[in-house]
Amino acid sequence: MTLIDGKAVSAQIKQEIAAEVEQIVAAGGKRPHLAAILVGHDGGSETYVANKVKACEACGFKSSLIRYEADVTEAELLAKVEELNQDADVDGFIVQLPLPKHISEQKVIEAIDYRKDVDGFHPINVGRLAIGLPCYVSATPNGIIELLRRYNIETSGKKCVVLGRSNIVGKPMATLMMQKANPGDATVTVCHSHSRDLKKECQEADIIIAAIGKPNFVTADMVKEGAVVIDVGTTRVPDATKKSGFRLNGDVKFDEVAPKCSFITPVPGGVGPMTIVSLMKNTLLAGKKAIYQ
Amino acid sequence: MTLIDGKAVSAQIKQEIAAEVEQIVAAGGKRPHLAAILVGHDGGSETYVANKVKACEACGFKSSLIRYEADVTEAELLAKVEELNQDADVDGFIVQLPLPKHISEQKVIEAIDYRKDVDGFHPINVGRLAIGLPCYVSATPNGIIELLRRYNIETSGKKCVVLGRSNIVGKPMATLMMQKANPGDATVTVCHSHSRDLKKECQEADIIIAAIGKPNFVTADMVKEGAVVIDVGTTRVPDATKKSGFRLNGDVKFDEVAPKCSFITPVPGGVGPMTIVSLMKNTLLAGKKAIYQ
Repeated sequence: MTLIDGKAVSAQIKQEIAAEVEQIVAAGGKRPHLAAILVGHDGGSETYVANKVKACEACGFKSSLIRYEADVTEAELLAKVEELNQDADVDGFIVQLPLPKHISEQKVIEAIDYRKDVDGFHPINVGRLAIGLPCYVSATPNGIIELLRRYNIETSGKKCVVLGRSNIVGKPMATLMMQKANPGDATVTVCHSHSRDLKKECQEADIIIAAIGKPNFVTADMVKEGAVVIDVGTTRVPDATKKSGFRLNGDVKFDEVAPKCSFITPVPGGVGPMTIVSLMKNTLLAGKKAIYQ
Repeated sequence: MTLIDGKAVSAQIKQEIAAEVEQIVAAGGKRPHLAAILVGHDGGSETYVANKVKACEACGFKSSLIRYEADVTEAELLAKVEELNQDADVDGFIVQLPLPKHISEQKVIEAIDYRKDVDGFHPINVGRLAIGLPCYVSATPNGIIELLRRYNIETSGKKCVVLGRSNIVGKPMATLMMQKANPGDATVTVCHSHSRDLKKECQEADIIIAAIGKPNFVTADMVKEGAVVIDVGTTRVPDATKKSGFRLNGDVKFDEVAPKCSFITPVPGGVGPMTIVSLMKNTLLAGKKAIYQ
């Protein structure tokens, strides 16, 4: 069994990005600039955004953090989005989700110029992904593809089961795994809350990608010998032994599943760090205007 | 075994559309107007476009056919697309594919105003479909969903195998079948040329949707007793007994598969007529500005 070390891979990629940025800057080019809008004080969001800012530093990017209290109006937020759309110094930006209930997330996402949408949530980027055109790919699926690539995990012709059909993980993950590409070319099955045959599908899978947000959902009896298991789950579970009062728990019952796997990602330290590094890669592409002019 | 009669259903839907159009016109509204651009003289394209024009008549739509010889330049075609984008009388339009090799189909598709893209090929419509937002849905998948709906075929929790991963059928079909909707909520598997376990996947499927363009590919041994089989294939096979010199052949070996099915679509007369009627439904939506302003 090989433990997939997302922390090490992401550190490696950040170094690669930083080296490229220094080359760009040395050649007189512009340092990529990522801006992030954070609304309110949700603990998870604070942590994610702080980690993104830290990753920008590691990559040699310029970063800007724009904060609003939770009572910001939708109109104020949309005005800031428009300002960032117009700001030539900002190469890409994100609005950290979730947003307070009085603001339409979809409206905000669609207001972002797709050429600066480094989260890859705008319908144009989602559509281009589905068609197979160059675009900003949603960070978590892209990070998983990168792990499969760097660990030389064969995907062509394999049976890949994706658990979950969310817009930001399950659906784009399925799209990437079925694409004519390497990694890709897999036989992809998407299972979800309505699936009657989820367990059987998993038992037959060469690759399981679990993204349903149910701690310990995938148990040893659901996994065949030699399978590759990618765990996207990061549910906060109360844990008195931790300083924070909680621990992150994956969708996979790691202790019993790991011994059966050829490859498996831990939680934390597997997919998580790759998600942030994917955002950095998109920001580098934005800085280079590699996808859109 | 129930034979799914796409011809009858499509005739019924055209009547429903025509009735709605007459109401709109009687109330002082505008008659929906579909324009089609046809380049060259490909036999299949000629037939498809002629059938679309005929369907417009049946629905009470205004239609315009714009013809170019095969040597039209990309710039000329793009100029016409822009003219139709601007033409307030045209509610929706299509550019019949395939185009001659010197013209980029993707460039032409992306030049179409997504609000008039009644084929649903523009990245914005593809992306909105993936996210689950209102949009123009690609005609063939939408026609199949309509058949499942009108025949009350249960899809929730069922195992649905889609054969083929094309941008206009396989991928959007998979998206629709896995959506939180009815029809939808199926466990969806997409198989293709690289799939090692295609036969086994089919044998376990409650619903098979075949869209690979290989005549008679799906044989009786691949289909379980009581399955629903939807045949999207329409390959032209030489046939001396036909006046045209060919017949349309589906992806399914109908004679041996049909007896095992609970429902099956014939070729022709199954999915084909539904594809055109889906385009008519999108045109009606465009005329009513039901999706975009």
